[in-house]
Amino acid sequence: MKKFLDDSFLLDSDTAGRLYHEHAEKMPIIDYHCHLPPREIAENKKFENLTKIWLEGDHYKWRAMRTNGIDEHFITGKASDYEKFLKWSETVPYTVRNPLYHWTHLELKRYFGIDRILNPESAREIYHKCTERLQQEDFSARNILKKFNVEVVCTTDDPADQLENHEMLNAEGFAVRILPTFRPDKSMQVENPTVYNEYLDRLARAADSEITDLPSLYDVLKKRHDFFESLGCRLSDHGIEEVYSEEIMDKEAEEIFGRIRKGTPLTNEEQLKFKSAMLLFFAELDYDSGWTQQYHIGALRNNNSRMLEALGPDSGFDSIGDANIGQSLSRFLDSLDRKNILAKTILYNVNPRDNYLVGSMAGNFNEGSFPGKIQFGAGWWFLDQKEGMEWQINALSNLGLLSRFVGMTTDSRSFLSYTRHEYFRRILCNLVGMDVEKGLIPNDFTLLGKMIEDICYFNARKYFAF
Amino acid sequence: MKKFLDDSFLLDSDTAGRLYHEHAEKMPIIDYHCHLPPREIAENKKFENLTKIWLEGDHYKWRAMRTNGIDEHFITGKASDYEKFLKWSETVPYTVRNPLYHWTHLELKRYFGIDRILNPESAREIYHKCTERLQQEDFSARNILKKFNVEVVCTTDDPADQLENHEMLNAEGFAVRILPTFRPDKSMQVENPTVYNEYLDRLARAADSEITDLPSLYDVLKKRHDFFESLGCRLSDHGIEEVYSEEIMDKEAEEIFGRIRKGTPLTNEEQLKFKSAMLLFFAELDYDSGWTQQYHIGALRNNNSRMLEALGPDSGFDSIGDANIGQSLSRFLDSLDRKNILAKTILYNVNPRDNYLVGSMAGNFNEGSFPGKIQFGAGWWFLDQKEGMEWQINALSNLGLLSRFVGMTTDSRSFLSYTRHEYFRRILCNLVGMDVEKGLIPNDFTLLGKMIEDICYFNARKYFAF
Amino acid sequence: MKKFLDDSFLLDSDTAGRLYHEHAEKMPIIDYHCHLPPREIAENKKFENLTKIWLEGDHYKWRAMRTNGIDEHFITGKASDYEKFLKWSETVPYTVRNPLYHWTHLELKRYFGIDRILNPESAREIYHKCTERLQQEDFSARNILKKFNVEVVCTTDDPADQLENHEMLNAEGFAVRILPTFRPDKSMQVENPTVYNEYLDRLARAADSEITDLPSLYDVLKKRHDFFESLGCRLSDHGIEEVYSEEIMDKEAEEIFGRIRKGTPLTNEEQLKFKSAMLLFFAELDYDSGWTQQYHIGALRNNNSRMLEALGPDSGFDSIGDANIGQSLSRFLDSLDRKNILAKTILYNVNPRDNYLVGSMAGNFNEGSFPGKIQFGAGWWFLDQKEGMEWQINALSNLGLLSRFVGMTTDSRSFLSYTRHEYFRRILCNLVGMDVEKGLIPNDFTLLGKMIEDICYFNARKYFAF
Repeated sequence: MKKFLDDSFLLDSDTAGRLYHEHAEKMPIIDYHCHLPPREIAENKKFENLTKIWLEGDHYKWRAMRTNGIDEHFITGKASDYEKFLKWSETVPYTVRNPLYHWTHLELKRYFGIDRILNPESAREIYHKCTERLQQEDFSARNILKKFNVEVVCTTDDPADQLENHEMLNAEGFAVRILPTFRPDKSMQVENPTVYNEYLDRLARAADSEITDLPSLYDVLKKRHDFFESLGCRLSDHGIEEVYSEEIMDKEAEEIFGRIRKGTPLTNEEQLKFKSAMLLFFAELDYDSGWTQQYHIGALRNNNSRMLEALGPDSGFDSIGDANIGQSLSRFLDSLDRKNILAKTILYNVNPRDNYLVGSMAGNFNEGSFPGKIQFGAGWWFLDQKEGMEWQINALSNLGLLSRFVGMTTDSRSFLSYTRHEYFRRILCNLVGMDVEKGLIPNDFTLLGKMIEDICYFNARKYFAF
Repeated sequence: MKKFLDDSFLLDSDTAGRLYHEHAEKMPIIDYHCHLPPREIAENKKFENLTKIWLEGDHYKWRAMRTNGIDEHFITGKASDYEKFLKWSETVPYTVRNPLYHWTHLELKRYFGIDRILNPESAREIYHKCTERLQQEDFSARNILKKFNVEVVCTTDDPADQLENHEMLNAEGFAVRILPTFRPDKSMQVENPTVYNEYLDRLARAADSEITDLPSLYDVLKKRHDFFESLGCRLSDHGIEEVYSEEIMDKEAEEIFGRIRKGTPLTNEEQLKFKSAMLLFFAELDYDSGWTQQYHIGALRNNNSRMLEALGPDSGFDSIGDANIGQSLSRFLDSLDRKNILAKTILYNVNPRDNYLVGSMAGNFNEGSFPGKIQFGAGWWFLDQKEGMEWQINALSNLGLLSRFVGMTTDSRSFLSYTRHEYFRRILCNLVGMDVEKGLIPNDFTLLGKMIEDICYFNARKYFAF
Repeated sequence: MKKFLDDSFLLDSDTAGRLYHEHAEKMPIIDYHCHLPPREIAENKKFENLTKIWLEGDHYKWRAMRTNGIDEHFITGKASDYEKFLKWSETVPYTVRNPLYHWTHLELKRYFGIDRILNPESAREIYHKCTERLQQEDFSARNILKKFNVEVVCTTDDPADQLENHEMLNAEGFAVRILPTFRPDKSMQVENPTVYNEYLDRLARAADSEITDLPSLYDVLKKRHDFFESLGCRLSDHGIEEVYSEEIMDKEAEEIFGRIRKGTPLTNEEQLKFKSAMLLFFAELDYDSGWTQQYHIGALRNNNSRMLEALGPDSGFDSIGDANIGQSLSRFLDSLDRKNILAKTILYNVNPRDNYLVGSMAGNFNEGSFPGKIQFGAGWWFLDQKEGMEWQINALSNLGLLSRFVGMTTDSRSFLSYTRHEYFRRILCNLVGMDVEKGLIPNDFTLLGKMIEDICYFNARKYFAF
């Protein structure tokens, strides 16, 4: 029997152990998609206590606590930080077999050197020990990144954002490159005309310009895209419920935009058409700049409208949807390919039942121009755990070339999530190692060591060319 | 090599064995959802022979026999009980790797003490031995329940049912509590106006009332709901192909009901709207009574219309559907939550591709009021087997809190199905035990033993509060 | 640690090894569905070099090369055969964990006796050694079939094909039976009236007849069906994106056909209706002839329109779709069953998320007339690999009778694919063997050896009755 969370954690064979310890472990981290707040890096923030860095904003933990019957008072409410932590410590023993159980103890161990299991008995000691450690210099936002050998961090930013923190970090020459990512979801969110027009006004101001018609919107977005690029941005990102790929003429798009800019609500069909036009426009910008475009497909957000009103989005009330995406994804990628404006692309699906569809779709648009040009992205959100990662790695292996995979991202809002790369790397090495043990792959460490290092680091470095 | 069906059946590690034998095995059974005929319990029925108790009404076995090329004469036809049994014994060797193979031999062993494999050679001996045993006192319906340490049985009943058997058992104080479940599917089955109106008449008589308009239908259903509650009912159940959650005003629902009550067929859209109104009504009743509502989602029933005409429903011609349910399920649960009428809820899906959707959807409506309030239900029907159960347990583990799971039901029509709880428990202990062996969970029997006992028994006891 | 590709390749237990080596290995091959070119068998073709027999027409390898960043010049372009091979050898090391890696080395070993791993270092030696071997007599098309103990090959043919090669082989009495399969996809492809009408003209000529209206189309197809049968054809095959089962009256079908025969494009709804009429017509022909009908469901073809124009179909730009098929598949099979014209049927789905749907649907129409009448077909195309096969075998086991499975086909265009039967058989034996080791199946070699032999050979022989 193996000890919980020992050196061979997740590594079920000697080969897996060698692959991890001799190859994966030492690779730097390129965290090409996350939600870290750039201001906290710029300010080199330190955290008051363990709740502040660990529980605040962590909707995974919030969901688990709610499911465990904890009152909202102790989750996002007015309870003290310590009370909140106690409620979390009560919940942890109930998270056995949930990724939170692994993440929790891996983070305690790697960040704080704590080997104890978190539960109500150990809560006080752990809280105080960690809070004390957090006051030390090596626990500033920037030092955490250095400690985890992070080379690049790509944050997620709205085109209307001023990126003053990125500028400052850039000017300062901080050793870890902190780059923005262009995420223009709000410029497609036309459901509510008032909210949308307020956003456009903000966007126009950011570009020191005006948005009166569609060409001027395009112009403003292009300016922002250029500005993002000037700060080293190499990626865009889109959170989409389904793939918008309706046919639409320029003229019709302009008319639709004219209507909503005047405050007229759009029909569902008009919304879909407008989003299709925008998605195409962004794709062209990305291609022209040599960026990589990312699509996060299929989340069903804000299911609980009561809690949305109380807490806003990203509070733990999102889930997995089941829209059909085959035809529209095919049409979208094909329309780009036909116009010769298909940029490097990463497709992430959140419903695992679509793994095989997405994994096979990528192959249709890999035309030899760059290895692994169209990527089937790493297990994401609800799939960012052992079986989710294994499914993605296996589907990618069977349908494409695992060796050309750009690997893992944290996709996290927390500085304590860098152990997710370790988690992914161990799982990857375990799968490959197991295959070697079973005679399914030659026992060739030159070949396999390189493959592991490529997936953990070198592929991303070449692919994104930061 | 392990021996077939020995003590460690399905338990691949020592830890799994300890978890099962020291914790799971001794827990009583709360069979909160099944289809046992209450009359047979009330009458304390004894069974004439093995065919009567084992093959009659068992559409799993029927399907297997048909697939094996057996003529209907020997399945539901006029062949003698012994002939039918012989044909089943011919089929059993062809069911290797089907759950029927495990169920069959587990039932022979645990109920009848028979260790032989069933096949044409052993058929005669087994038939006669079992038939003889069935004549003994400990094989009466009630004694079987006692033998398997069953504490509660929730049968499945129509609101029009008189529940005279439940009343009798209640009055008599039978040690095993036999409680009804409110399953009003027929009051939503508006496809055929004649059949529907006949049903409404029967329902009205049961409530000693009349159904002239929608309010009077609601009134009658409420009366029956109260009557069910008076006999200890704590659950409703709904078999739905998809989730009906169209918006509909009271007035429109009343008009639609008026039309069908007069015998006018409804359009598809009207049917969907009417079902949406009814589903909402039932949800409110359940909330008001503090019951748990169950939704069995996604079966495609009566696919073979020729056999439906010959044999009626539930004869083995149902299968798994693929309706999209994400949006509608979200809308339905949200509409209840907004009105603050969301009762405890168990969601069962029959297509395993929806496991992750359902598992994640539950999390959106767990708001801290009761641990595990919205449950992702146990592997059901076609999923009531090893890989189906493992998938459900793993999805639940990854997306929610396995520790708060209310566990297994037989969902069976047969008194010989109580070994399904053993089957589930072994699979559960095996998964957890394996994780311990691999170092994925701490080797902490206090924690894990409690978790296993909770899932097998205590969670259900607290959750349903019979 | 096991050696790569040794005798126990894919066989993880002694029991699996015994099942394979004592039972599966020696069974002849009935390759009841493939795409071998009948002319190459008739001509007893020999291959100029390794590229010609191995890379030409192999869109699996092409996709992998494109994903690996290889220019089309070296894939389908004007590069020399040796240059193309070198580019393939560069790609092979990147296919680790893709089925291509296994297929490649299994084919090198079993066909050419080569044990070396293919990569740029070994490329020259392997190319020349294999090319030399290909000149020898035992590497003619026919001798390859004999060497692999193939008893029957069913090619895939258009009703307009003259089948002169099948006739010749038939007349000659070639020991391996080479039979045609009736694949009338083009007679349903009404998207483009010009292309469709040209096809109809060709079809009419093949039948020495004219197609002026729907009855005459039916008549011509029936003639061709009869002609196929005269050459031993026992199967039809249909590649369908979804299941066409709209209700349509004869008169409406005739009108629709009249329109397109005059060159008028059809609406989407008309296309769907017409395809529904045709699918029903073919099903009736098959039933009347006692054939088996095959449905390959759910591929999304020709996603890359630019490459379709450049290279034509079947060039590696197809993928997995996600159409909903439950309702329509049920309706289609039921409509045949009601009319008592439901032939033996094999259902293949290409999206693994539909495994459970298809596996359960088969059970609804197995009515006891023939064991395993409605088959859930073997893992196909993107699923023709270890996890795809395991999923199909497990789903079939859980939902139906694995013992009645007609087993594997190559579905290949290449004479070097006969090792796919070995690959499947090893995987099958491994699953069954593992279950024995774990005590999930009795250790009964009489029972299991027969089951393995049945799935590998005898079931197909009885089922198709060639």
